Amino acid sequence: MGGFLQRVKIVEVGLRDGLQNESQILSTSVKREVAEKLVGAGLTELEVTSFVHPRWIPQLADAQELAESLPVIDGVRYRALVPNAKGLNRALQTPVHEYAVFLSASETHNRKNINKGIEETFPVLEEVVGRSLEDGKRVRGYVSTVFGCPYEGEVPLKQVVAICERLFEMGVYEVSLGDTIGVATPDQVKEKLKTLATCFPAERLAGHFHDTRGTALVNAYVSLEQGILTLDSAFGGLGGCPYAPGASGNMATEDLVYMLEGMGISTGVDLPALCQVSRLVQRELGKQLPSRVLQSVLAMEGEKGGNLL
Amino acid sequence: MGGFLQRVKIVEVGLRDGLQNESQILSTSVKREVAEKLVGAGLTELEVTSFVHPRWIPQLADAQELAESLPVIDGVRYRALVPNAKGLNRALQTPVHEYAVFLSASETHNRKNINKGIEETFPVLEEVVGRSLEDGKRVRGYVSTVFGCPYEGEVPLKQVVAICERLFEMGVYEVSLGDTIGVATPDQVKEKLKTLATCFPAERLAGHFHDTRGTALVNAYVSLEQGILTLDSAFGGLGGCPYAPGASGNMATEDLVYMLEGMGISTGVDLPALCQVSRLVQRELGKQLPSRVLQSVLAMEGEKGGNLL
Repeated sequence: MGGFLQRVKIVEVGLRDGLQNESQILSTSVKREVAEKLVGAGLTELEVTSFVHPRWIPQLADAQELAESLPVIDGVRYRALVPNAKGLNRALQTPVHEYAVFLSASETHNRKNINKGIEETFPVLEEVVGRSLEDGKRVRGYVSTVFGCPYEGEVPLKQVVAICERLFEMGVYEVSLGDTIGVATPDQVKEKLKTLATCFPAERLAGHFHDTRGTALVNAYVSLEQGILTLDSAFGGLGGCPYAPGASGNMATEDLVYMLEGMGISTGVDLPALCQVSRLVQRELGKQLPSRVLQSVLAMEGEKGGNLL
Repeated sequence: MGGFLQRVKIVEVGLRDGLQNESQILSTSVKREVAEKLVGAGLTELEVTSFVHPRWIPQLADAQELAESLPVIDGVRYRALVPNAKGLNRALQTPVHEYAVFLSASETHNRKNINKGIEETFPVLEEVVGRSLEDGKRVRGYVSTVFGCPYEGEVPLKQVVAICERLFEMGVYEVSLGDTIGVATPDQVKEKLKTLATCFPAERLAGHFHDTRGTALVNAYVSLEQGILTLDSAFGGLGGCPYAPGASGNMATEDLVYMLEGMGISTGVDLPALCQVSRLVQRELGKQLPSRVLQSVLAMEGEKGGNLL
């Protein structure tokens, strides 16, 4: 691919989208250590938590405390999910750099996830985005179930387009298109992104793929081919799938970095250092994380001459 | 992609390339049952064993017994690896339909694997191919380490081209290009296959990708784009990597089938049935197999309404 790919941006979402799907709750100090080490490994855009009500996601109940404890480092931006005005009130008390609002492209998933219809969700997001912008904060939009919904199946692209339009009108700077349940396949991704990139500037779109069925990396590759250069991923492939407990989670940052570097795209990420972060979290959670690169690095560790990376 | 993709062919190599990398040895009766169920799930091209000396691969020591026990079914072809004349003598006593010879594109890997230099290997393969053809058997060629060698690193493409030429001259009908240690990334695959497809008819080439670093499926996708429509995979992603014990193995047939079907390519494979075969082998081996689709299907089993496949 062309030189424009040097602008690929990785948004590390493990501390938020990863941990919110893990049954075990990590302590704030461990999360802080993980954030620091992720930054040490070269990641600069980190979604670290969510200001949803702790009742819904107890794993992220320490959002405020964590956000306040994060090391301030030049060039590193922390992000957090903000579901509504109450969450925004909490977020605004922290030094988090930017926010993200979210909704689903399918009505049923939105109702199950947010307890509101899509149309009723917009005013809530409008308030969050408006007040955030007034406060000088950028806001990203997440659209879930773009490539399929666990309740409705295929989601018409025009619904996605309409929702993206509303989000951009509100003032979000970017929309991240989520394959929330990891059902997308590459030709479908290519076709949908091709259309979306005619409706919106490609640099305003991001890809958020889950690896539930092993297709995250190929979908990311297809996104790059379509000029969508911002990709969300989670260290270790953390995350799981709420609809299939035990299945794989987010696209693994390790695997994405390995592919990108192999394509001559410099990510600035130190892969061995990143694997050490994931190893730490594996130990904390007491389970193997799904990243293939992680597991191959750990398997080769201590082996002499096996410098395959 | 175009309609020509309807000609995609899956070569199921789990019973050979998968099991030869597992430390545990399955009984002949279990292997036979697995073969029968793989056929029941719709796979028609099965590499079932290898006629190497049992000393080297005790997991496949029952090659002859297994080959003789396989159910004879119209349209189903069994294949086996044949390393040399001695192996061929054993193979010729069985009803296996076709054979495969193999060597590495890198000198060091070939020496470590076959105990001969590449140049010394050719006469051995020539004899096997010649006698097989006389006996009316088709022969496939495998070239290992096409995309990287654990000892030599990058392997010059001209070495690969030269070896393919020799294999075709001997009379093999197809060469399977192996990413033996799973280091390939998609742009590298695209570039190498593009060149190879100018040297040889694309329909004479196959892709054999390992998922050690999570790139098997994206590499398979890129192969299809280059018109290389025959892909090797193993049920469950069986196999591991001899250079990284504990790492992932072959591209998982389940994941490949999921991607292909999602691209509108009919594989004839019944995915739930295939997952049941892998589940059986998981139980026999006492370990989780790496296929993402397999794990998501198993995770969802018993869950009501979760019909995501």
